[in-house]
Amino acid sequence: MKPNYEPNAPPLLIVISGPAGVGKDSVIQRMQERGYRFHFVITATDRPPRPNEVDGVDYFFVTTEEFDRMERDGELLEHAIVYGQHKGIPKQQVREALASGVDVVMRLDVQGAASVRRLVPEAVLIFLTASSFDELRRRLERRGEDTPAQLRERIATARQEMERVTEFDYVVVNREGQLEQAVDDVLAIIRAEHCRVEPRVVRL
Amino acid sequence: MKPNYEPNAPPLLIVISGPAGVGKDSVIQRMQERGYRFHFVITATDRPPRPNEVDGVDYFFVTTEEFDRMERDGELLEHAIVYGQHKGIPKQQVREALASGVDVVMRLDVQGAASVRRLVPEAVLIFLTASSFDELRRRLERRGEDTPAQLRERIATARQEMERVTEFDYVVVNREGQLEQAVDDVLAIIRAEHCRVEPRVVRL
Repeated sequence: MKPNYEPNAPPLLIVISGPAGVGKDSVIQRMQERGYRFHFVITATDRPPRPNEVDGVDYFFVTTEEFDRMERDGELLEHAIVYGQHKGIPKQQVREALASGVDVVMRLDVQGAASVRRLVPEAVLIFLTASSFDELRRRLERRGEDTPAQLRERIATARQEMERVTEFDYVVVNREGQLEQAVDDVLAIIRAEHCRVEPRVVRL
Repeated sequence: MKPNYEPNAPPLLIVISGPAGVGKDSVIQRMQERGYRFHFVITATDRPPRPNEVDGVDYFFVTTEEFDRMERDGELLEHAIVYGQHKGIPKQQVREALASGVDVVMRLDVQGAASVRRLVPEAVLIFLTASSFDELRRRLERRGEDTPAQLRERIATARQEMERVTEFDYVVVNREGQLEQAVDDVLAIIRAEHCRVEPRVVRL
């Protein structure tokens, strides 16, 4: 076993997960703005884009037929059906990014993160959470992106997902109005993981 | 298992170790100056104080007879003979500090850190190292605290100790002129450890 004295320690595969509405996107955006250099994995999905979403930036928006083909050909690292829509991570994208030596960051729902844990045990799993379930519910309601039925389903799902924190390595609380603290936590976790004597070498 | 959502996560027992001359004291001093609040464990020793050392600050300087009594009465968490001199950690001090809820930081030589690993597996072990063995040798020579014979022994010991990094959790490189980076690493490790889903609860 080779200790990672050298600055060229192997890149990490980092999963930022947690219930909907917890602020995954905001945390990842601030990580970028703070100058942390990483490859952000873009998920493929067959759901329609929301008004503010851009293809190839927020998601790869593909047809259900194209998604099924990728799944059949083993091109997806992980795939799941969430709220009746397909989501999956193109494997080749992750492989190439790691080979280039940079850390790879994925934003995944809790179900997706659990799949990655099974498939890539060396991944660093971070569970982003709100300070309480009530706060999470308020955030989801405020977002105003869902129909009342969708909202009810999201809240029920979020409640179940909050219980799954035990499947993760780290838990970061994104408190109302304290986004920078949550970002500090995530960046500290990544920095610390790079100091591990036994690095988590990802093999895909 | 209770996830550590709450800010009152259990305190950590942190060991800062590494070969002589690697900058353990400087790193710990800067951690304090940066505002990280912790209890610094003071080691008991029967060696005579160096000119700049203060009893109760740098070490508890005790007689060999007093040291033997503490050892006999099981009052030491860890004790060792280094360069023919006794060193040990008063157990009660660590217990009280942890009970008060603050992290406890110990500066230990490599032999002492290995003992703590066995006695307190939940401790967070950080190995501080120089960027190369030659740099470490230069630092030891420059320190000018030792006789030529002592210096030769220290250098030989340091060489052996560099191999023991694999017994630690984390390795932090204290590069010449880049002390703040090493301090950033150590503080990130501590912050990350406080975000672990399964906290390392120390029992003494």
